[in-house]
Amino acid sequence: MNETLNSILGRRSIRKFTDKAVSEDCKKLLLKAAFAAPSAKNQRGTDFVVVEDRKILDTLADNLQYGKMLYQAPLCIAVCSETKRGAEELVLWEEDASAAIENILVAAKSLGLGSVWLGILAREDRENKVREILEVPSEIRIVGIAAIGYPDEEKEPHGEINEARVHFNKW
Amino acid sequence: MNETLNSILGRRSIRKFTDKAVSEDCKKLLLKAAFAAPSAKNQRGTDFVVVEDRKILDTLADNLQYGKMLYQAPLCIAVCSETKRGAEELVLWEEDASAAIENILVAAKSLGLGSVWLGILAREDRENKVREILEVPSEIRIVGIAAIGYPDEEKEPHGEINEARVHFNKW
Repeated sequence: MNETLNSILGRRSIRKFTDKAVSEDCKKLLLKAAFAAPSAKNQRGTDFVVVEDRKILDTLADNLQYGKMLYQAPLCIAVCSETKRGAEELVLWEEDASAAIENILVAAKSLGLGSVWLGILAREDRENKVREILEVPSEIRIVGIAAIGYPDEEKEPHGEINEARVHFNKW
Repeated sequence: MNETLNSILGRRSIRKFTDKAVSEDCKKLLLKAAFAAPSAKNQRGTDFVVVEDRKILDTLADNLQYGKMLYQAPLCIAVCSETKRGAEELVLWEEDASAAIENILVAAKSLGLGSVWLGILAREDRENKVREILEVPSEIRIVGIAAIGYPDEEKEPHGEINEARVHFNKW
C-alpha cells in the first residue's frame, strides 16, 4: 500500500463537515487535480464552478433533496461540460467530467478533506435547479457537484474486491 | 504537493510499454482501487474483465483503431456496467464506471505503471467488437478499457489550471 492507494481507498462519502474553511492553496490543488483528468480526444470541455458563498450553498441545499450537507460544507465545485463545440461533438463529455470529479475527491482526501459526489445529471429537474442557481448556460450540462470540507465524521476505508464482478480474459 | 497529488498530476496517457508483466499484487491493488470508486445510490453495477492473454490482447489491438498499444501492453482491464437490475434502473452507470477507470489509472501511476484510457462507449461498432472478443453479455455496456504496463515513454506531469474554465460562485 502507498499514500495514493490510501487516498483512493480512504475516500468515502462524507456528509458532515466542521466549519473550517478550505484554504486558497487547497482549492488550487483540487483544481489542478481536476484539470489533470484525462479527456477523450483531448477535447477538454469541462468547466468548474467553485462555490463558497454561503447564500448560494444554502440555496443549493434548499433545492437538492440529497444535497442537504451543503448547509454545512464550506465549499462545493460544480463540474460542468460542453457537449458540442461548433460542429464538433464532444464524444465522452460525461466520462471526462466524471474523471475530473473523482480526481477532486481523491485529492481532497489526500489533503485531509472530506467530500461527497452529488449526481446531478440523473434527473432533469435537479439539473435545471442547479442551472438556475449557478446561472449555467443552457447548452452546458451539469454532471455533478463535489461537496467539500473538513470531515466531522469518520468512515472505514474501502479495500474489498467483489470477486463475482471480476472476470479473467473473457466475461 | 503530496504523493497522491503527484500520482494524479503525473498520470499521463502512456502508449508505449516494456514487456515486464504486472504482478498479481499490483493487479489486486488496481482492482481494490477500482472497487473503491463511488457509485450513485451505491448501486455498484460495475464489472471488470482483466485481460492478460496475449492472443486476446492482440485481437483487441487488431480491432481497435486507437488500441494498437494493446499489442505491447501486458494487461488491460475492460470496465463494464449494468444499466438495469430487474426493474431498477442504474441511474449513473457511465459515471460510476468512469470513476472506477480513473481510480485504476491513478493507482497504476502510484505503482510505477503507465496506462491509457480507451473510450469504448463513443462508438457502437467499437463497443460491439469488444463485446464479441470479450464475450460480454448484450445487456452490459462496455464503458472503457484501461491499457496498463510498465511505461516505455516519459511525459511531463500536469499541473495547469485553465482559468477561463473556472467560475466563482456563479458561471
